[in-house]
Amino acid sequence: MPLRTALLQSSGRLGQVADNLKALDEAAARAAQAGAGLLVTSELFLTGYALGEQVATLAEPADGPSAQTVADLARRHGLAVLYGYPERDPVTGAVHNSAQLVDREGRALANYRKTHLFGCYEQEQFTPGEATVVQAELDGLRIGILICYDVEFPENVRSHALAGTDLLLVPTAQMHPFQFVAEQMVPVRAFENQMYIAYVNRTGPEAEFEFVGLSCLASPDGATRARAGRGEELVYGEVDPVLLAASREHNPYLRDRRPGLYASLI
Amino acid sequence: MPLRTALLQSSGRLGQVADNLKALDEAAARAAQAGAGLLVTSELFLTGYALGEQVATLAEPADGPSAQTVADLARRHGLAVLYGYPERDPVTGAVHNSAQLVDREGRALANYRKTHLFGCYEQEQFTPGEATVVQAELDGLRIGILICYDVEFPENVRSHALAGTDLLLVPTAQMHPFQFVAEQMVPVRAFENQMYIAYVNRTGPEAEFEFVGLSCLASPDGATRARAGRGEELVYGEVDPVLLAASREHNPYLRDRRPGLYASLI
Repeated sequence: MPLRTALLQSSGRLGQVADNLKALDEAAARAAQAGAGLLVTSELFLTGYALGEQVATLAEPADGPSAQTVADLARRHGLAVLYGYPERDPVTGAVHNSAQLVDREGRALANYRKTHLFGCYEQEQFTPGEATVVQAELDGLRIGILICYDVEFPENVRSHALAGTDLLLVPTAQMHPFQFVAEQMVPVRAFENQMYIAYVNRTGPEAEFEFVGLSCLASPDGATRARAGRGEELVYGEVDPVLLAASREHNPYLRDRRPGLYASLI
Repeated sequence: MPLRTALLQSSGRLGQVADNLKALDEAAARAAQAGAGLLVTSELFLTGYALGEQVATLAEPADGPSAQTVADLARRHGLAVLYGYPERDPVTGAVHNSAQLVDREGRALANYRKTHLFGCYEQEQFTPGEATVVQAELDGLRIGILICYDVEFPENVRSHALAGTDLLLVPTAQMHPFQFVAEQMVPVRAFENQMYIAYVNRTGPEAEFEFVGLSCLASPDGATRARAGRGEELVYGEVDPVLLAASREHNPYLRDRRPGLYASLI
């Protein structure tokens, strides 16, 4: 059965974690009402993106108080949630740009730390993760997680394809003038790797950034199954295992690779 | 100074090598007249694509009689030519799906054998090449060569980027219903790898195939500098080293890669 996926294209309120958790709760209620089994937020949705050094103050462990609140709302509304947040590693103290997947019973299934940090702000405030492929099983689908800039590197998405990812969730903070990535690159990634990709962006201005929206659900046949505009929006698309299997049967990309020729990539 | 590049979107006449060499001569005359320094043909332009077993009969060595004719016309018109042809290896006897670059003095600069063969027809009739990156210097640009299906594998184009390719020449035989590759994937490849790509297709029906045209010159900033329609056409675009250098300065993709994380690719 297809997994109806809700893309919450929203920037929330910068620095206002309680407000953003409330907005997430409301979006989860609407999404569940609309039959969605999974809700995906933008990058760093819990706190906002352009926080500067404040990001370190707001960072929480993967099992911190906000995680408990998200687990509770997922359970109440009966749908899985993938949310972006700044993570504090309780052992090293490092701050990561992370996204965590919680299932409809409120269990934490997977936590991913962005491996490819974009620009000076991210490189100054965050420690990069060291694992490209983080996965979990949800409703019979193998879910993978990347964040924003990660998906622009073909190597990262290919690594997911080789590890069997069916649906790649990509919270993002995609800025003007890089709409090309949302409009052209994400559908190409889905096609060349034979997977679904849910790419969920922020919107509007935030400090020196201008986020462009255009969130989308891209499918393995090269189609775009859902596409948001530029403003705040909750859009839906179906992730269909039957379409995925048929597309993979038809498309030989992963079978026709010649890994012996790709040594220069590593 | 920009290199004006002519894309000969044409299928020539199936199995009629002499006719196709004559068409190439005429196109070279027009392209030189229009100020082009380089003319690029479609895949297997010298013989046609859908030859079946006849391909083995028409295959020639890289320095065979057709190569001499192409060298002569390049010299006469004073422009470089990249042409697609079936190549017979004089030592092994194997037949390759190849493309050769000849400079404006008629010297053979580089010969590439397609490494990723598409579908049953190609896999039955051709032996795949064993080197992904074949390059040559032309007018201060580092030229690379791939053929059709090769460019659909992000690994191949990335290998070229890491080897410094500035302008990737891609003769192709792109069929219905895969227009997505010409329209969306080729510009993404140019952007994600910070290079120019000249993608030159065949047109119209040939045996069971229907070629879709849509040849293009894609630039490293994500723009499409030239785009053909569906029919026979000679289109032009400028390959600008100044734009290329500025784009690479601005775009950090190749600097931000983390090769230590990509081990699963090989």
